[in-house]
Amino acid sequence: MASFIEPRILKGFRDFLPAGEIARRNLTEKIENSFRSYGFVPIDTPAMEYAEILLGKGGGETEKQIYRFTDNGGRDVALRFDLTVPFARFLAAHRDELCFPFKRYHIAKVWRGENTQRGRYREFTQCDFDTIGSDSAAADFEILHIMRNTLLAISGGNVIIHLNHRGLFNRFLSRLGVLDKSVDILRTVDKLAKIGREETLKILSESVEETRAEEIVRFIGASGSFDETLAAMTNAAGPCPESERLGLIRSFMIDAGIADSFVLDPSITRGLDYYTGVVFESFLADIPGIGSVCSGGRYDNLVGLYSKDKRTALSGVGASIGIDRLIAGLESLGRLGTELSYARIAIACVSGAAGGAYQALAEKLRKEGVPCEVFPDEEKLSSQFQLAEKKGLRWLIIPDDEAPLEKPFTLRDLSKRENLEGLKVEDVVKIISPRSPLPF
Amino acid sequence: MASFIEPRILKGFRDFLPAGEIARRNLTEKIENSFRSYGFVPIDTPAMEYAEILLGKGGGETEKQIYRFTDNGGRDVALRFDLTVPFARFLAAHRDELCFPFKRYHIAKVWRGENTQRGRYREFTQCDFDTIGSDSAAADFEILHIMRNTLLAISGGNVIIHLNHRGLFNRFLSRLGVLDKSVDILRTVDKLAKIGREETLKILSESVEETRAEEIVRFIGASGSFDETLAAMTNAAGPCPESERLGLIRSFMIDAGIADSFVLDPSITRGLDYYTGVVFESFLADIPGIGSVCSGGRYDNLVGLYSKDKRTALSGVGASIGIDRLIAGLESLGRLGTELSYARIAIACVSGAAGGAYQALAEKLRKEGVPCEVFPDEEKLSSQFQLAEKKGLRWLIIPDDEAPLEKPFTLRDLSKRENLEGLKVEDVVKIISPRSPLPF
Repeated sequence: MASFIEPRILKGFRDFLPAGEIARRNLTEKIENSFRSYGFVPIDTPAMEYAEILLGKGGGETEKQIYRFTDNGGRDVALRFDLTVPFARFLAAHRDELCFPFKRYHIAKVWRGENTQRGRYREFTQCDFDTIGSDSAAADFEILHIMRNTLLAISGGNVIIHLNHRGLFNRFLSRLGVLDKSVDILRTVDKLAKIGREETLKILSESVEETRAEEIVRFIGASGSFDETLAAMTNAAGPCPESERLGLIRSFMIDAGIADSFVLDPSITRGLDYYTGVVFESFLADIPGIGSVCSGGRYDNLVGLYSKDKRTALSGVGASIGIDRLIAGLESLGRLGTELSYARIAIACVSGAAGGAYQALAEKLRKEGVPCEVFPDEEKLSSQFQLAEKKGLRWLIIPDDEAPLEKPFTLRDLSKRENLEGLKVEDVVKIISPRSPLPF
Repeated sequence: MASFIEPRILKGFRDFLPAGEIARRNLTEKIENSFRSYGFVPIDTPAMEYAEILLGKGGGETEKQIYRFTDNGGRDVALRFDLTVPFARFLAAHRDELCFPFKRYHIAKVWRGENTQRGRYREFTQCDFDTIGSDSAAADFEILHIMRNTLLAISGGNVIIHLNHRGLFNRFLSRLGVLDKSVDILRTVDKLAKIGREETLKILSESVEETRAEEIVRFIGASGSFDETLAAMTNAAGPCPESERLGLIRSFMIDAGIADSFVLDPSITRGLDYYTGVVFESFLADIPGIGSVCSGGRYDNLVGLYSKDKRTALSGVGASIGIDRLIAGLESLGRLGTELSYARIAIACVSGAAGGAYQALAEKLRKEGVPCEVFPDEEKLSSQFQLAEKKGLRWLIIPDDEAPLEKPFTLRDLSKRENLEGLKVEDVVKIISPRSPLPF
């Protein structure tokens, strides 16, 4: 056996201590409950796949960042770097076992050997939800509805979702006669917020005529109400199905009473991503500076690369919540939970011989919906008070030392440093209202 | 772009489709709720660590099975093959930030390049729970209490936990004068159930005198009530603290009213594992043949390898639930859930223009605790009935096609193939009782 090994971890990787892990889980559980309430179902895929599968569509950046190696069986394998590529492979492999429109969510860790100097992690959680196999505006709208309600439920503040249609932008470029330059244009337009109007204009003018560049900047800079912006965009691109789709989604927003949460923003294009229809980004109104916490859009045939299937292509619409960014944001707003335990109360150890009775007492509380810890070590009470405080517990039962199960006990309120005498389990249940049940 | 890539996955790795993933999650959530009700808190550690950390204590088998490679930064890294080694490293690294006795659980995937012909997976879930920093019988007992109650809650049948004390067995070997042969003896004794009494005796006789071998086989074969077996063992090993510890735990079981679930079984030794105190294995009474579904024990200083800390060693007691084995067992008993969705009801799409009103209607149900899906595509009703059935939904709302939010609707009961007319949201809530809330 080696004598001593420094307990270090890899750069960009993290341990999660209880307080941090509880906060993450509370957040993730709220998100999952929201997805489930819409009938979205969970799936999972392997952390490791054939490198060929994961790199199929990958360009240079992916290839550099992916953890790739040869396993003991000589296979060229890699760790997943996102949840989209494995999902495409999953759809192609299980198409006949699934039920379409297929609404799924997937929350799991992914790995990228990124430059950690930019505050990036090499192991982080992705949270994707998509509807596959429906081309309808209703499917687009449902994703937006979920985004709004889920972010509202977890952020404790207002949420603004910026929306656009990639197809409408392309139609506009086509009308200008510069669709063949769309890759360069998208790359530039995506940076508008960062580099400003003048710089955008300058870079655009390297690819297209100056008057065209000005028209593009005017198009993406259109502002006003949703309806005014949509009218301006439709005017610039010409009447088209993409403009009608945005109008229909807008009417859905009004009918569902949630129109206030949305802004039509022609500058949202999601850069070089694979989106073809609506695209969206969402911001917490209290901290817009952290950027989009949930983004997505509609895309065409996701499974093409992995399927020779001649049936209709599987298009879809979906979004991804940036869990790590969201946690950082909520933390900076002081809105991330600070629970240290799921227990609400503990039972002090007054006699080392009474371990069975203490568990029986605790079990009565647990059955009433009150999570209860039992302290295992017979130590002086002041130390047990300190332990309860360190664990973030307000209440400590000090059982009768002769007959802990039969006789009434003392309840210590650590926040007030006072004792309530002669209590029974039912009294405690009344004092500590059980955790309210989850919404469903 | 490559033209077509076969959507295969690596041998020993699995995709989880919705039905399977929902069953896994329901099971895991029940287990987690049980842990939380005892005040156990979650942690997480990186999937990937320095190989040196993970292999520190590893012998030849681990070295052969571990996924190990050199990352892009030239580091010798590996994927975790269990949750115990990362936990030891975690304890050494964060000792001063934690609160002892530290009660934690960790449910996460691990990876081993095992021979898949034995029905083993190369990616599987481990579920560990431990109390660190208490040497008390109460801590031992609490782990047993959790094992019993958690397995009862998820198995839907009786649970039998076999218990022994590794130190008592060593004391007995010492009394026989064969403690120096304990490695060989443990390896043999561990196979008793598989190879039988005669074969065990034969193999033991290769290491120790035949009369000693007979005494060992008699010791591990002792049977009867807990008290009778404890008396026989104490008689063979001599009165000692280990025997007293088992007696105290036995009194805890009686006081807590759960003694029927436990058997004192001197043949349980957990082979060559690192246990030093109590050891235990648990079986589902309906399918003992699948072997132990939850095993563990008490061990000495877990962090020794990673810590130069001169303070008291951190000993602990804990157990691990074999999630995959448990799922296979429950499935064979027909007791694994077969839910296809978390939704209870769906809303049919009667008009493609009403997507907003449908979501508003669904939202009313969600707020009442009824998860509700909205079908996005305007298709003939018979196709939407089929879709609901495929998704495992019994109820489908057919909204009024003129005023879906204002006017009463029809509710289709797909199980009876009949319609209930003129209903409102409150009627549906009464008909479909919301999911009962979680225990806490």
